[in-house]
Amino acid sequence: MQMKSRYRLATDATLATGAIVTLSGNPAHYLTQVLRLKPESKLRLFNREGGEWEGAIQAIRKREVDVVIETQTRAPAQTVGLTVCFAPIKGGRLETIIEKATELGASILQPVITSRTIVDKVNLDRAETIAKEAAEQCERIDWPEIREPVKLLSLLGSWSANMPLIYGDESGGSAPISEKLAAPAPTQWAILAGPEGGFTPEEFAALRHVKSAAGVGLGPRILRADTAVITLCALTLSAWGDWQERPRFTATE
Amino acid sequence: MQMKSRYRLATDATLATGAIVTLSGNPAHYLTQVLRLKPESKLRLFNREGGEWEGAIQAIRKREVDVVIETQTRAPAQTVGLTVCFAPIKGGRLETIIEKATELGASILQPVITSRTIVDKVNLDRAETIAKEAAEQCERIDWPEIREPVKLLSLLGSWSANMPLIYGDESGGSAPISEKLAAPAPTQWAILAGPEGGFTPEEFAALRHVKSAAGVGLGPRILRADTAVITLCALTLSAWGDWQERPRFTATE
Repeated sequence: MQMKSRYRLATDATLATGAIVTLSGNPAHYLTQVLRLKPESKLRLFNREGGEWEGAIQAIRKREVDVVIETQTRAPAQTVGLTVCFAPIKGGRLETIIEKATELGASILQPVITSRTIVDKVNLDRAETIAKEAAEQCERIDWPEIREPVKLLSLLGSWSANMPLIYGDESGGSAPISEKLAAPAPTQWAILAGPEGGFTPEEFAALRHVKSAAGVGLGPRILRADTAVITLCALTLSAWGDWQERPRFTATE
Repeated sequence: MQMKSRYRLATDATLATGAIVTLSGNPAHYLTQVLRLKPESKLRLFNREGGEWEGAIQAIRKREVDVVIETQTRAPAQTVGLTVCFAPIKGGRLETIIEKATELGASILQPVITSRTIVDKVNLDRAETIAKEAAEQCERIDWPEIREPVKLLSLLGSWSANMPLIYGDESGGSAPISEKLAAPAPTQWAILAGPEGGFTPEEFAALRHVKSAAGVGLGPRILRADTAVITLCALTLSAWGDWQERPRFTATE
């Protein structure tokens, strides 16, 4: 087993041998004030394009840390093809959705505004920070792309016939999700969960018009919006995603 | 479809036609100050023993509400046989575990103290309040029994050979959960997720000694403790629980 430095940070910087990456803001504060790392301390930086690289702190200034990139520790990941469409909800539950979808393996997070959506704005910077922190925590080497919110009906109007869309149907009108999961694994798919209060009849009608969309039952109880998103992620990723792979990480302590 | 009063409250009281149930504390406050219900307003009360009953407010006093029980709206539920064993974690994430396990359909919540568990106390009253509120929200008519914390090694020492125990194994040494779920459905089973930091080698050894225990892989990422619990609940309940049933509820607005 390869032993690696235990500190991992997501970065937007280009990663290559010899590159100097300057960290600022929370990551710099975390390294210098919380972890109290010194020059020459090792850490790992990662992103979707570059994979994961080990580097060493070269210089510490008041609010910035320079890291010199040394060697690649993991190649860029094959992205799992899950797009998570979800109605934004309030505060903590929205953060739960972003964090759990990242941990479970989603690639794209698409906020969707429905008729019964109460929250119609999403702080995309904050959302990306949560996704990056979740990626750091869970040993991912990328994090989901977070898209601008769109209206459900316009999203469905241009939905691709080749992109399966699995939506949580609490009306009782759909077969259990386990039946759907028995289908051959698509390489890309999307899940959709409605807001608290569910979809309207018009939205259900629009969903039924999308040939590649299928409602699924998630049991006899009415799940909260965040629970439905997490459940749809976990079940579809277990059946269709990369869950046959195993963790490869062993941290040095 | 049967139309019912939309307000549902969990209660420990005995439910039968003509019984008077006196609500106090938060439920009484909620009915009178938040919903501003008046005498003769309808509501539903439920618990595991009695099922769900409709009643009407008979009297409102300063901090108490009397409800006269009228007719049963749902018979007591057949309990799904899932016991959730989890290492207590801090604040919000513990509440997430209790809420989500309740929504997804767990019957028993068993806090387990492991070597790397940082939080060794659980406020059981608070935990039960969260479970009741989740049951009210999700149309359950019971809520999980919440047990006193026990040490993992003593729990495993007396573990029944007839009770399958599915535990999340982040060591990379177990097959993916999907393989395990293909087995015939047990009528009772337990899931176990470790604390942040995982199980110790000694704990893994103890788990391997339990004949009815099986480790499962939850993909290549390292899930947080609460994510692992929710995932184990959702996947095992979908495969083995009551998720072939559909929601039966239509609320009056």
